[in-house]
Amino acid sequence: MRVSQFFISTLKEAPSEAELPSHKLMLRAGYIRKLASGLYTWMPLGLRVLRKVENIVREEMNKSGGIELLMPAVQPAELWQETGRWAVFGPQMLKIKDRHDNNFCFGPTHEEVITDIARREIRSYRQLPVNFYQIQTKFRDEVRPRFGVMRAREFMMKDAYSFHADYASLEQTYQAMHDTYSRIFTRLGLQFRAVAADTGAIGGSGSHEFHVLADSGEDALAFCPDSDYAANVEMAEAVAPAAARAAATQQIQKTITPGQRTIEEVAAFFATSAQNVLKAIAVVTHEDEFVLLLLRGDHQLNEIKAGKLLGEFRFASDDEIHRNMNCRAGYIGPVGSKVRMLADRAAAAMSDFVCGANDDGFHYTGVNFGRDVQLGDVHDLRNAVAGDPSPDGKGTLEICRGIEVGHIFQLRKKYAEALNATFLDAQGKTQVMEMGCYGIGVSRIVAAAIEQNYDERGIILPAAMAPFQVAIVPIGMGKSDAVRGAAEQLYTGLVEAGIEVLLYDRDERPGVMFADMELIGIPHRIVIGERSLKEGNVEYQGRCDAQAQSIPLQNAPEFVKSKLCN
Amino acid sequence: MRVSQFFISTLKEAPSEAELPSHKLMLRAGYIRKLASGLYTWMPLGLRVLRKVENIVREEMNKSGGIELLMPAVQPAELWQETGRWAVFGPQMLKIKDRHDNNFCFGPTHEEVITDIARREIRSYRQLPVNFYQIQTKFRDEVRPRFGVMRAREFMMKDAYSFHADYASLEQTYQAMHDTYSRIFTRLGLQFRAVAADTGAIGGSGSHEFHVLADSGEDALAFCPDSDYAANVEMAEAVAPAAARAAATQQIQKTITPGQRTIEEVAAFFATSAQNVLKAIAVVTHEDEFVLLLLRGDHQLNEIKAGKLLGEFRFASDDEIHRNMNCRAGYIGPVGSKVRMLADRAAAAMSDFVCGANDDGFHYTGVNFGRDVQLGDVHDLRNAVAGDPSPDGKGTLEICRGIEVGHIFQLRKKYAEALNATFLDAQGKTQVMEMGCYGIGVSRIVAAAIEQNYDERGIILPAAMAPFQVAIVPIGMGKSDAVRGAAEQLYTGLVEAGIEVLLYDRDERPGVMFADMELIGIPHRIVIGERSLKEGNVEYQGRCDAQAQSIPLQNAPEFVKSKLCN
Repeated sequence: MRVSQFFISTLKEAPSEAELPSHKLMLRAGYIRKLASGLYTWMPLGLRVLRKVENIVREEMNKSGGIELLMPAVQPAELWQETGRWAVFGPQMLKIKDRHDNNFCFGPTHEEVITDIARREIRSYRQLPVNFYQIQTKFRDEVRPRFGVMRAREFMMKDAYSFHADYASLEQTYQAMHDTYSRIFTRLGLQFRAVAADTGAIGGSGSHEFHVLADSGEDALAFCPDSDYAANVEMAEAVAPAAARAAATQQIQKTITPGQRTIEEVAAFFATSAQNVLKAIAVVTHEDEFVLLLLRGDHQLNEIKAGKLLGEFRFASDDEIHRNMNCRAGYIGPVGSKVRMLADRAAAAMSDFVCGANDDGFHYTGVNFGRDVQLGDVHDLRNAVAGDPSPDGKGTLEICRGIEVGHIFQLRKKYAEALNATFLDAQGKTQVMEMGCYGIGVSRIVAAAIEQNYDERGIILPAAMAPFQVAIVPIGMGKSDAVRGAAEQLYTGLVEAGIEVLLYDRDERPGVMFADMELIGIPHRIVIGERSLKEGNVEYQGRCDAQAQSIPLQNAPEFVKSKLCN
Repeated sequence: MRVSQFFISTLKEAPSEAELPSHKLMLRAGYIRKLASGLYTWMPLGLRVLRKVENIVREEMNKSGGIELLMPAVQPAELWQETGRWAVFGPQMLKIKDRHDNNFCFGPTHEEVITDIARREIRSYRQLPVNFYQIQTKFRDEVRPRFGVMRAREFMMKDAYSFHADYASLEQTYQAMHDTYSRIFTRLGLQFRAVAADTGAIGGSGSHEFHVLADSGEDALAFCPDSDYAANVEMAEAVAPAAARAAATQQIQKTITPGQRTIEEVAAFFATSAQNVLKAIAVVTHEDEFVLLLLRGDHQLNEIKAGKLLGEFRFASDDEIHRNMNCRAGYIGPVGSKVRMLADRAAAAMSDFVCGANDDGFHYTGVNFGRDVQLGDVHDLRNAVAGDPSPDGKGTLEICRGIEVGHIFQLRKKYAEALNATFLDAQGKTQVMEMGCYGIGVSRIVAAAIEQNYDERGIILPAAMAPFQVAIVPIGMGKSDAVRGAAEQLYTGLVEAGIEVLLYDRDERPGVMFADMELIGIPHRIVIGERSLKEGNVEYQGRCDAQAQSIPLQNAPEFVKSKLCN
């Protein structure tokens, strides 16, 4: 491709609203342009990258036996009413009325539609298993769309849905999809991690997420370097401390602690660490019960785990705390309290600890369970942290951050039962189908890949995703026939070899051309200038190389080809 | 592909609601399945065909210098308000409110969005011309969706938009797109015709439609076999008869014609032809003027032509006719009438004609312009018909029917002016861009191709669009190792040669397998049976061949390859 026949539109500065590096860089490189909140046009350069991701996803899905189809984006409300999700999916679903006032939505996901197809088309166990997939534009009406295409409202998704005669078959396809996803992210050249995950609004039993690793990732992932264990921190079990609770050595003592309310303030006041301060978090359940959650001061409450114990809950207001504990939020604690209490496993192992005295401006020190306060129910209530024992007993956990780009679910019979998707088994008996679903955020992958691969000069894409493999940058092409001739000759040679090459055939200043090619993320660059050309040479530089190297013009095609093979 | 690893779902009968052959066949062949009115899932088999069309369109667009991008499907109302089309586009546009109650639409077309991109990204004449295109799902909320994907609500469209520094540049790209469309439909293997067309709701100056020719086509097309002239009948000029009006030979005479109201009845009553009866059509303009349109009895009013003369108009009610003409609709005529009259050119050439007498139950015969009635304004008011002189003077017109699959427009400055899309010309002066737009109904092409190519056994697709090129049908594969071995060997050989082959590896009855392969439109079929295999032969039959021919198994791959080259 020639720059003169393509459309490259780079910016010196990203709009100030862009926060994440990938968002800034995608705007600056002219990969995307914003139309409205959460709505982006994929400009020619960005679309090339998006299509590379799409094609790799499609190829690997086909290899694994997936069968592509294409469902409508607009879906009738009736199907969603059959599964009950029309009411519960919430405002993320963009609801639409057509000219006849019938209800539709712009599909946020397609479980209902595909299960409707399955119940109509599949009669016999002989037609199972089958794994349908599509690559399609989806819409989710995010409350706060942000980070560019990372959390856009309209986005491209690969969604696959498998149907099975029994659970063993579902497990087999689930594993095959797990493997396929690993192949996809490996081919894309990304560092990624598969982790056990919560099933959320989609439902079902088992579930894994695939994360591109990046410091800016929204999700914290717990993993064990010594084993296969990996889970979203939402899910990762925080196991009980190995050592039993130490015996009490101190007496309980009430101390005036005026103005000391946070864990940090209290720990500093008593010249101890947060590990020795008990954190009491007051919540109110859906049934209006006031409950204290007890954690070690340095630990964070895991709301998903608490939710599984309590059902829907919310944090108590200052008023509710005062009404139930007779003091302000910074001074509540378990001693003498009459309300229901749940203790985290690590909190339950504390001894001689500090906690609020249920008296404004006072804390206790030297508190011990059993002696000073009854230890209630003990549960896993906190986020796992680095250094925790791995739940599989094979080492200690580390924490990294990731961007979720894939999610696979064992839906089991949730949708098939609601929509009555049945088949006749080998004995002629009607059975409900087992079902799995498997999503990949195709457009999000582009942002995630950049979040993982960039520097101060711009985007550094893995070769499999780069919009072009090689840039040819001729210096002073307008003035020098030798430069023009060499550039055209090299361009033709590389194009004929099937290499995706971009020829910068607009006579810009070298600095502008170099900056453009670095910003948009082309892995290899050849600069052709009159001076080195006189010696028969051109300058090669890889996108991550510290400096250029001189190579003979006549060897350049072979040299580039060898670089592309690496 | 193996049938056992694919998803084929054929039906013996199409649902009764399907009217057109293509709709019936696409349902029966399992190309598509209906989700709701005007919403169809492209099943695996149909999607293969759709992708072939999409890929050919993309390849040819790229060859012609088109640059692909991808705009959001959901568009903010603000842009449509800037061009004024939010109010005028009508209920075909699916309007949406998001969770914050902001107005959006599911894009029926993208002139506004692309012009917004152009005005932001294009500063200089050096960036022009540029031709952006996308291949994308569009939504138009048809009053009465029908004919399957032929007139669906959600459909796949290729829409291109070009921007130019001057009109000469627009004309050049317009011609290049005309040529590109011709190449696309030629590569697809379709009989088609490009015709001059009305610009309709999109606006602008020149416009051509591309039609796939088929008897069931909704559009009538006028063309001259002896020249390049071709136009939609909506647009085709009906030229004045070559001969001058004949002199009067009869006296005007009023005759009682009780109950004779239609042209046919009146012509029969007077034992003459409809050509000799003057048709008077009463209409009312937007300004409430009552107007008589005079046509030859055998001609049809062209409402688009009349609209260009009168502005918006409607047919007069019985009451309005009675109030203005003092008689009922079947008896109105020009003689003695005081209302404004417009005569078609062919009507103006009539002499000694029959017309209503403006008296219930009476007609005149022997009427002549000039003598009996003043001839008012003469215009082209009718549809051209077969046998009319070609407007280019090079022969006579014929009429055929077509399905519109492409439409190209010279939009000129309509959108660029409304959205202030300007650039700096070579003199540094701000100019408004010239603009063209170019659409292809990608999904409709599949239906149109079938409408043009089918027989009583099913779909006959041109090779470029067929879901697979070759079907291998082994008879009794389950019982015969020889058959299975030969089938597998041939399958492997053809796959390795890069040929798209479908192996019918489910042990169905021969009749079922033959019917399936014929229904879904695979151009070539090889049947492997034990008997002929004993002689080393298999049976080849082309989809349109009257009978099979025996060929040696060992030659089969070469034989098939030679067939595919034809």
